Amino acid sequence: MRKAAFIAVGSELLRAERPETNSWTASRVLRGAGLLLHEKRVVEDTVEGVATAVRELVPRCELVVVSGGLGPTADDVTREGVAAALGRALWRHRPTGEVIAARYAARGRPMPDFAWRMADVVEGAELLPNPVGTAAGQWLELPGCTLVLLPGVPSELEAMLTGLVLPRLGAGAGILTRTLRLAGVYESLVEQRVMHLYERFGRENVTILAARGQVSLLLLAEGSDAAARLEEMDRELAALAGPDLYGRDDDTLASAVLAALRRRGWTLAVGESCSGGLVASQIVAVPGASGVFVGGAVAYADALKRGILGVPADLLATHGAVSREVAEAMADGARALGASCGLGITGVAGPTGGTPDKPVGTVHMAAVTPAGRRHQLHRFPGDRQMVRELTAAFALDLLRRLVAFPGEAGGGAT
Amino acid sequence: MRKAAFIAVGSELLRAERPETNSWTASRVLRGAGLLLHEKRVVEDTVEGVATAVRELVPRCELVVVSGGLGPTADDVTREGVAAALGRALWRHRPTGEVIAARYAARGRPMPDFAWRMADVVEGAELLPNPVGTAAGQWLELPGCTLVLLPGVPSELEAMLTGLVLPRLGAGAGILTRTLRLAGVYESLVEQRVMHLYERFGRENVTILAARGQVSLLLLAEGSDAAARLEEMDRELAALAGPDLYGRDDDTLASAVLAALRRRGWTLAVGESCSGGLVASQIVAVPGASGVFVGGAVAYADALKRGILGVPADLLATHGAVSREVAEAMADGARALGASCGLGITGVAGPTGGTPDKPVGTVHMAAVTPAGRRHQLHRFPGDRQMVRELTAAFALDLLRRLVAFPGEAGGGAT
Repeated sequence: MRKAAFIAVGSELLRAERPETNSWTASRVLRGAGLLLHEKRVVEDTVEGVATAVRELVPRCELVVVSGGLGPTADDVTREGVAAALGRALWRHRPTGEVIAARYAARGRPMPDFAWRMADVVEGAELLPNPVGTAAGQWLELPGCTLVLLPGVPSELEAMLTGLVLPRLGAGAGILTRTLRLAGVYESLVEQRVMHLYERFGRENVTILAARGQVSLLLLAEGSDAAARLEEMDRELAALAGPDLYGRDDDTLASAVLAALRRRGWTLAVGESCSGGLVASQIVAVPGASGVFVGGAVAYADALKRGILGVPADLLATHGAVSREVAEAMADGARALGASCGLGITGVAGPTGGTPDKPVGTVHMAAVTPAGRRHQLHRFPGDRQMVRELTAAFALDLLRRLVAFPGEAGGGAT
Repeated sequence: MRKAAFIAVGSELLRAERPETNSWTASRVLRGAGLLLHEKRVVEDTVEGVATAVRELVPRCELVVVSGGLGPTADDVTREGVAAALGRALWRHRPTGEVIAARYAARGRPMPDFAWRMADVVEGAELLPNPVGTAAGQWLELPGCTLVLLPGVPSELEAMLTGLVLPRLGAGAGILTRTLRLAGVYESLVEQRVMHLYERFGRENVTILAARGQVSLLLLAEGSDAAARLEEMDRELAALAGPDLYGRDDDTLASAVLAALRRRGWTLAVGESCSGGLVASQIVAVPGASGVFVGGAVAYADALKRGILGVPADLLATHGAVSREVAEAMADGARALGASCGLGITGVAGPTGGTPDKPVGTVHMAAVTPAGRRHQLHRFPGDRQMVRELTAAFALDLLRRLVAFPGEAGGGAT
């Protein structure tokens, strides 16, 4: 397996609480050339910060990708940092500068002097034209290591990795990956079911991840028989997952639900209380949802449960808004808006509103289709955000199972 | 400023496309001791991977935090990696092992042999008891550097950083930070307005970030007069931001909207088409939303725009579902569900459904309150996901401005 490393340059990436996603793109694209990320770093945008990272990683990797710091401003110092690390000079490539000047001119703006820095090239580097932006990349062949400098704008990084870098890395059997996606089951149960296969497939080739009510199995295979081994892993693990498996790779729970409904020619409407539109929003995130999903009600106040969803007032008075009866009436009411299936959700997301009988995390969910109905009561852990995310995942999964396996009794983690 | 570095141990963190958030926690907590993260790394869970990172970072930082790899399994090798980096031995601390054995016993399970590894201590390290989990942390005082090993479970890491590590780091004037949150304005405009202050405040102390229709200004101050300087930065930048500023730090657009409504004693209902519940979901994410928000309709199909929101059929036929007239009728229809204010949103999220007149990204949004009404037409860039996120941000901001500044003409980026 060939080793790669990724360096993200930018002090703001060390301060802001938001994900650094360029390394995800790099990891995915580079696997196509048989390169696996062995390390990633976020460093400050100082010459010394960049230089140190390059100096440390180049000797131990076949490929090092540096992302960001190639723009025109004072804190764009990747070129200077790399030159310092390698003990090389920077020289100015006038034709590149003139292309950039022409871009400024086309927008009716003069090119400021400092923008010429984008035409500075590390001695020995080849320029990589940027097909979707201004800052050019650079490609350096060093003894035992290829060093590539790319812009930090995600769309530019992805375009250049895919269109310019990957083709040049060539050869090398690719590393194949696949993600099996499971829902309605807890990580520890999945681990118990699959762990006897670790030794056979190699522990480093099967990774279990759990998040927000879902479990993923990341599979990895390399070498000349990678495709066949990946299929074998998929087959055996999918068999163990059974009906908990809802999809692969880019599938989402919502897209799996929509696909299952589409196969039956059914449509869907939802009635949400504590999830507050989260289920609808996840469904509408899927392109083409409008063929199956008609909409629904965010019946947060009881008046809307009665008004839009037709939940009888005496049901609310007798059982309370958070009850099996109301969840089922909400599912029926959603369906009555004009769909063949309905989903009803009511619960206590917290932090207030809990009672000894119905503590924070108590959620009733009900699904109804032309072929049957099903109800689940959950006591979810965590804060308001976690309760709502778990609610959305388990509610979509309840509906998926009812549509795809109408004969099965319940299932899921009730 | 004192330098800190963070090392996250775990091959799965190099493969999965999900955020590594422990470094965010560390960055936030350590600022309280005047320590700023200068670098963060994700490394493989191998002895060599951990050892190399520790060997490289200890000489150049006052504090290095290693997170993860302290559990009982074969890929928990942080102890071994650190011992290798420092050329020290591991010894087994029996009392710690017995505490762990007692935990197993309490759950009615025998302690497996390999779990004793959790009692292995790097020579010279002090054990840090884990108040919320099983794996203990370790604290090493090295020449010029404190090296701390902590578990990777986010709740355990946060509890130990806050409760054990921060108090011991002591002294050192803290680094103060604040985030100013703006909406309805583009990053480049904010930059133009504030850039003349960079020199005065120090470029490294003001960071602009833009994401999903919002702009944040991260402010940083240190030293004995940090509090006064932060207030001064806040005052000057807030004045430049004007009505674009909706809040600070943990405020969200939705919480700002709810607060503005609450001040006037108004309530809200929404009618969403292309945003599909995203606005409702962001509102319901705010604890206590139920005092102001009654709910609404996800009127994805036209039948629901007519049925729940009472949009006249001839309006839909004459102007089309994506039109100012329909957005306004949806806002009025939402309000008629039983609230004093309404928000209506209709648009083309893509990837299909665009026309030459109304390309993908076309979104009409309308807000109505007892004090007035306002409409905006946007042409958002990007894919379905980005169009929906920009829609939610600009719609909440439209309502915020109408409620907070009813006299102002429009505003925002129409």
